[in-house]
Order: sequence, then structure tokens, then C-alpha cells
Amino acid sequence: MPGRNFATTAVAIAVVVVAALASASAGADDDEQGHLRREADRIVRLPGQPDDGVDFPMYSGYVTVDEGAGRALFYWLQEAAAEAQPAPLVLWLNGGPGCSSVAYGASEELGAFRIRPDGATLFLNAYRWNRAANILFLDSPAGVGFSYTNTTSDLYDSGDRRTAHDSYKFLARWFERFPQYKYRDFYIAGESYAGHYVPQLSQIVYRKNKGVEKPIMNLKGFMVGNAVTDDYHDQVGTFESWWNHGLISDATYRLLDASCVHDSGEHPSPRCNAAYDKATAEQGDIDPYSIYTPTCNQTSTSSSSSTPRRMRLKGRYPWMRGSSYDPCTERHSTVYYNRPEVQRALHANVTAGAGGAMNYTWATCSDTINNNWGDSPKSVLHIYKELIAAGLRIWVFSGDTDAVVPLTATRYSIDALNLPTVVSWYPWYDAKEQQKQQQEVGGWSQVYEGLTLVTVRGAGHEVPLHRPRQALILFRHFLRGKPMPPKNGTVV
Amino acid sequence: MPGRNFATTAVAIAVVVVAALASASAGADDDEQGHLRREADRIVRLPGQPDDGVDFPMYSGYVTVDEGAGRALFYWLQEAAAEAQPAPLVLWLNGGPGCSSVAYGASEELGAFRIRPDGATLFLNAYRWNRAANILFLDSPAGVGFSYTNTTSDLYDSGDRRTAHDSYKFLARWFERFPQYKYRDFYIAGESYAGHYVPQLSQIVYRKNKGVEKPIMNLKGFMVGNAVTDDYHDQVGTFESWWNHGLISDATYRLLDASCVHDSGEHPSPRCNAAYDKATAEQGDIDPYSIYTPTCNQTSTSSSSSTPRRMRLKGRYPWMRGSSYDPCTERHSTVYYNRPEVQRALHANVTAGAGGAMNYTWATCSDTINNNWGDSPKSVLHIYKELIAAGLRIWVFSGDTDAVVPLTATRYSIDALNLPTVVSWYPWYDAKEQQKQQQEVGGWSQVYEGLTLVTVRGAGHEVPLHRPRQALILFRHFLRGKPMPPKNGTVV
Repeated sequence: MPGRNFATTAVAIAVVVVAALASASAGADDDEQGHLRREADRIVRLPGQPDDGVDFPMYSGYVTVDEGAGRALFYWLQEAAAEAQPAPLVLWLNGGPGCSSVAYGASEELGAFRIRPDGATLFLNAYRWNRAANILFLDSPAGVGFSYTNTTSDLYDSGDRRTAHDSYKFLARWFERFPQYKYRDFYIAGESYAGHYVPQLSQIVYRKNKGVEKPIMNLKGFMVGNAVTDDYHDQVGTFESWWNHGLISDATYRLLDASCVHDSGEHPSPRCNAAYDKATAEQGDIDPYSIYTPTCNQTSTSSSSSTPRRMRLKGRYPWMRGSSYDPCTERHSTVYYNRPEVQRALHANVTAGAGGAMNYTWATCSDTINNNWGDSPKSVLHIYKELIAAGLRIWVFSGDTDAVVPLTATRYSIDALNLPTVVSWYPWYDAKEQQKQQQEVGGWSQVYEGLTLVTVRGAGHEVPLHRPRQALILFRHFLRGKPMPPKNGTVV
Repeated sequence: MPGRNFATTAVAIAVVVVAALASASAGADDDEQGHLRREADRIVRLPGQPDDGVDFPMYSGYVTVDEGAGRALFYWLQEAAAEAQPAPLVLWLNGGPGCSSVAYGASEELGAFRIRPDGATLFLNAYRWNRAANILFLDSPAGVGFSYTNTTSDLYDSGDRRTAHDSYKFLARWFERFPQYKYRDFYIAGESYAGHYVPQLSQIVYRKNKGVEKPIMNLKGFMVGNAVTDDYHDQVGTFESWWNHGLISDATYRLLDASCVHDSGEHPSPRCNAAYDKATAEQGDIDPYSIYTPTCNQTSTSSSSSTPRRMRLKGRYPWMRGSSYDPCTERHSTVYYNRPEVQRALHANVTAGAGGAMNYTWATCSDTINNNWGDSPKSVLHIYKELIAAGLRIWVFSGDTDAVVPLTATRYSIDALNLPTVVSWYPWYDAKEQQKQQQEVGGWSQVYEGLTLVTVRGAGHEVPLHRPRQALILFRHFLRGKPMPPKNGTVV
């Protein structure tokens, strides 16, 4: 039974207040209500943000995607600085299912800020992707991060289909609130289980646009990283990768191959789950998302949590992670995003204290959503085929020290598309500016007809966390549609 | 034609001088000449050594192994401190073929000192293996490092057989010079191509000891790391590992499998060499000996060297290497060991300036030796079988981020022995003293009947360089014959 959407009401009230202050700057061709809501979403200042360098506007707030059920999705737009405009718009999605794009993408990967261990202050990420584009983070589906539903049952029957359709509805309404992005070059990107979300949402946008001469959502392509793509090939590749990296025994490798490869990745059989449990025990207390980096120390919330520490395709929990970067980032974000003043600044959880939909602690990932995930097709490769044929730009990247969706999984899945090769596997280089002789192999790449595969050397599951500089190089090349730079290639 | 052995003569002269000073301390049961030569070999002080902490005696010098040819092998003994005695004796050998144990084992891996970038000063390695044993480094065969021959043709027809026999001769004479090590527990260890040397020398010692009730060389076992073992299985595993780590294309993987797996690793066919060249080009300018660490920067001697930068089984040059550790260590050692005062302190190159055998610059590895390597059996697994049956302790370890002799190569080679499993694959832990809750996975291990396999997580080809603390834990467990510690295992 749909409850009342307190949040939407509260936002509406806020809008009225802000509107009075902001109406003077409304553009002539701008829908008045869109403008008012957009200005209500403007982030004036984030608690703890640095005094210098924040030269880009930000907006965040809710877009209702189902009035009846009371489902509203939370977004956070980090625009490019004025001198970089007009730049493309890029939607970023994290996976899980159940994990927040605010927690991961925005706060420890490609977002403008990173959170200090005090859980209170922020610093600028030198390699923030809004140096190259306007980045729109979305917590999806409802029940994830700050996104909520007033219909409790929604939390127990989420699945790929509704996630895609709600996300599309979000986009349609968001473009009304931000009409300046209509017709702008638009890309969708994400990682991990967003390997499902990204192509699925891209497909809807593509199909709705079909026959429209000048579509509002001017989708040019998509990019996914360490992406769940095709259960059979992903699993074959994952098990092979585990064995080759010395994480599991010969016997368990054989057992996994015998028990799992024809299962659904998201809904494995009990027999397959038992094989996974064996593999997890053999693997030990490493960070499967980054197998060579230290874990956040054992006294952390992760090991004392009620959630069993499992690495299985169902439940790619990114909260066990492991030292140039801080392996305890989730803890800092959990503190920061539960601060009332932070939520106020973000226009998030606006009914807090009023008995509203989000009367629970903000969490990086939702166990409820994850444990009750419904429909999940075994493959999205048919969507790749459709969208390659449509001429969309499609890039797939992989951090090569991830054991959750390892490189070998991605190689097998992409190979299954049988695409002709345009440029064979080659090392790409990170040529530091003004030091072109100091080139390092950033990873490897192969250009297929219709798809570009890029690996990032030494990066785990969250590529922009582990290799921020290389990730920004990757992002810029994707936006330009240019292959990754070979040796002595152009400096980015 | 054998030339005159200037070095031996010079040593003899030195002995007379030193003998006069040292004769007072000669032991009663000690052969007088052995004692004199030993005292002549005592290292008084190394140039640039730290003022504190050097509480262990060291000796170095030459042992002639063939008077006719004028072949003399250089050794460096780093004894354990007095309070750790009596401790076992461990011979350490580096591979190549052609690479110096002084350059690698002693100076950047398990040895007592590391060389600073000034090429002049030393600091103590906190995890030096002489904390647990008396370590004997040997430059082998003649022509490698400080070891020399007066018969130039020796440099062009070296091979496994003579290397083993010369090394045995070295040992026999060395024990006469150091009789306090007679009957002492003795182990042989090494890495890379020493995967051949170590079992081969162990086999000779074992066979010569057979039937002797109380052998002088009291060989208890051997240990090898990232070891060349069995060409067929090594190559199958190497190619699979390269592909799984994203270093090569699908096409090159297939080409290597079709072109190389039945070849000799040391003497590949032109067809196989062409496939290797393709793989090397695809791999790019990474450090194959440690695929996730930076290379010593591109202006280094490695890229300007006349030696083509190849990664092939023939020519496992450890001089291309790549940041908690210094990736340019070979450069520092090349400076340090070419200093005349260092050579004097080490009693090395004693005929320098006299037109003696070593009238060339000391180098970490010898191209001549490497490029002209002779006999090299395709497998040493038959020796494993013989020595397992003999009850010797045999440990095999592998740094799991090495692409030269990767973990997968070692797994396939060991699997080919078909040994029964005693303890299945499990993660071993590095429990830091007094902080047992801060345990990290050091790697994985499997105990077979007669052989223990241990991996070291995140270590490259030179395990003690990349993971010095974990390497010392490994070494101590090997010496005790105790399996690697499981979670909550005993602190070392």
C-alpha cells in the first residue's frame, strides 16, 4: 500500500521558499516550475568542503518516479566548471544490486570530493571526472542510498526491469528540471552490477528515441567497468582468474566449474553456493575487490557486521575493501552522510524526524535490496548487439586486480560477441605532461568494431579509486571516442 | 688454453700476510691452512656500512674449483649473530643463467645490506635472512659476478652440468676452509633459473653422501622460488598466466601455445622465439618481474643497454625491474661493486690492475654466459622425485605478481609430480607481533607429501625484495619444517 510521500511534499515546501530568492535569475525559455525546483536543489555549500577550488555548481535532490507507490530517486549533479562548458552530461551508476552511487562513485571514485577519516571534512579529488563532463550520480533503485519508497514491498521485489524503467522516468523528469541539458551529448556509465543497469537503461533510451529527429536525451554511448555482463562467460572467466591468481585450490576450481557455470550469477543453486563458500574460505581475509592491497583493519565494522563476509556473484558487496588510498572509505562516508547538516545541505532525507520514508540510517549498500533481488537476465550481450548495430559508442573497462568481476570474466564475455578486431591488444601509456619520457603502461586495450575494451593495470574493482589518474585519462578518451594512447601518444 | 690464475696467487700472498696477524686465534682442531685462508677472507669493514647493528661476522673470497682451467668461484658468507648460533647453513643461488648472487640475493633480496642510490653507502635490511641462518652467497658459474675463469672458452660453453659440478667442488673445499660448518644442518636455496641449479646440486650432494654415516655436507633440504622447473608445464602455465593477467592478446596466447610448449625453455625454436617477440611487444614497457610496480625510469641503463629488452625463457634477465622498494637497485649495485675499495674489502677481483682474469667491469648479469648457455634439461622433476623419496625437505615458493616464472607455471609443474595432498590450499597469515588482530594474508600454501608449496601475495620474481617481511617468515618456517601459519597461527 503506497504511503504518503513526505519527501516530495517537503521538497515542494522548500521550493516555495527558495523560489522567492531565486526567481530573479530564471531564464526566459525556462519552464518556471523546473527552474524553481532546480534552484531548490542547488547545493550552497557542503559541510566540511574545502574553501578553495570548488569552482563548479552542484545540485542534488529527489525526482519522484512513481507517485502512487511513493518512489523517489536521489541524484547529485556535479557540473563541470564554467570554462569547460559546454561539456557532455554523464550519468553514473553503481551496482550491488543495492549500492549507492553517492557512497561509491561520488565519494571514493570519480566524484569531486573525498571524505577524510574524520567523517566530517572533504578534500578535492584532483582527478574528478567533472573536469571533463557534467556528472550526474543516481542512487538506484528506490531503497538504495538516499532514494526511497513509501511502499515497503518495493524493497522486496526490486529487479532489473523496474530499476531500468524507474531510471528512465527519473531521466525524463530530470531533463525537465534541467532543460539546459536537453539535446546535450549524453552518456551513461557505471560499474559492477551496473553492467546490467547501464546497457538496459541505454536500450530504453535508444528505443524511445527511435524515430525522434532531435531527441531530448541525446544518448551517444555507454561505458561500463568490471561489469557483470554474461553469467556463463563471466563465471568461467572468474573461476579461471581465481585459480591463476592463486586464490583457490585445484579441487575448488574443478568444483566451481562443475557446479556453477550454467547457473544464474544472481540466483545460484545451493550446490553452486556451496562451491562459492569453499572458494571464499580458501581465499581468506583478502579484499576481493583489490587482491593486492591491505584490507581496512580487522576491527572495522565490516568484520563485526551481521553481513557474512562472502564473495559470490549474488552479493558483490563492495564494502569489504582493502595504501596510497584509504581502505576504510565506506566508514567515513557512513559517518558523513548520516550527519543531519550534510543531509540538509544535500536536500536528502528531507522528512527525517517527521516519521518519513527514510527513518533508517543511511548505508552504503542495502542488504534488503541485495538479498531480495528479483529478475536478472543471465546476459545483456543481446543489448550490446542491438546498441552496437545502432552505432552507439560502447566502451568496457576492467581494473585487472579485481577478483569480483575479474578481467578474464570480461575478456570471455566480450569475446562471446565475436566482434571483428580493428586494433589488436596493445599497451596504452600514461605519458605525464612535460615528462613524456616517463611513460608508464596504464593498461591494455583492444578496439573491436563497435566496442573498445580497456584494462587499467593494478586497479581493483573500483578503478577510479585505485588508479584515479589513469581513470580520468580513460574517461577523456571515451568522451572523445579516441583509442587509448599508444607509446609516445599524445598527452591528455 | 688455461691461463695463469693470478687471483689464486694473489690470495695466497694475502694469506701469508694475514696469517701472521691471525695465527694467535687458530683453533686447536682446525686445519692450519684452512684457518689462515678463512681469516684472510674475513671482511673487516665494508665501505659505507652502517656504524651500528653489524653484529655478525662476514667472510668473502675465492675458492678455486679447477686449477687447470683457472676457474675460481666467489662466495660471501654472512653469518648469524653469535646469540643465534648454532644456526643452520644455507647456500643461496641466483639464476639467469649468468646472474650474480651478490648482485641480487645479497644486495636487494635476503642479504644483510641494501645499497643506497648513492652507490656508496649501505643500510641494514631489517629482514635479512642471517637473522635465522648463516647465509652463503655464491656467484656461479665462473664468469658470473666476481667468479672468473682463466679459460675464455669456459664462458662460451657453460651449462647446467659443469655449474653443478663446480659448485659441488666449491662446497667441498669451502667446508675445509670453514670446518665449523661441517656436519651442520645445511640447506640449498635459490630462485629463477636456480630452479635448475638447486635441485641439481642437491642431487650431487645427496648422492655423494649416500652410505656415509656422518656426512660433512649435512644436506637437509632445499627451497626454490619462482623456479624454472619443467619446461612443458612452465610454459603452458606462463602463457595462461599472461593471458589471465591481460598482458597478451587472444591471438598471441594461441600462437604461443601452438609454437612453444614442446620446445626447450632455454633453447626455443625460431618459431617459438617469434611468438615470444610478439608477446613481449604486446606486454609493453612493464617490469615483467613485477607486473604492478613502476619500472626504473626510462632513462636508465636498461633501455640504453645493448641488450634487447626481451622477456623470454632463454634470458630471464632480472635487470629490467620496476614503490616502497627502489626499482633501480641494479644501478646502485653496479656502482658499488665496481668501487676498488669495495672490491678490496671483499677480497674480490684481487688481480685487478695486474692484467688478471677479471679485467672487465663487474656486472649484475653476464650476457656472454646467458647467450651461450649449453646443456639445460627440459625438466628437473625427476630430481624432485629422487630427493622426495630420500626424505629431503623440499619447499617451493612463488611471488604471485611475477610474469617471468609465474605462479601458474609453478602450479602446473608441481601438479605434474602427482603428489598426495596433506594440507589443502589455504591462506597463510602474517600476524604482526603484539598485534595479532592485524593479520594479513601473506599468501597461500599447500602441503604435499614430500613438498610444500607457498605463494607470497603481491610479490614479484624476487620475493624478498618485494615482500621482505613475508619472505623472512617463509624462510623461518622452512628452516623449522613447519607449515605456514594459518589464521590466528603462532607469531614468528
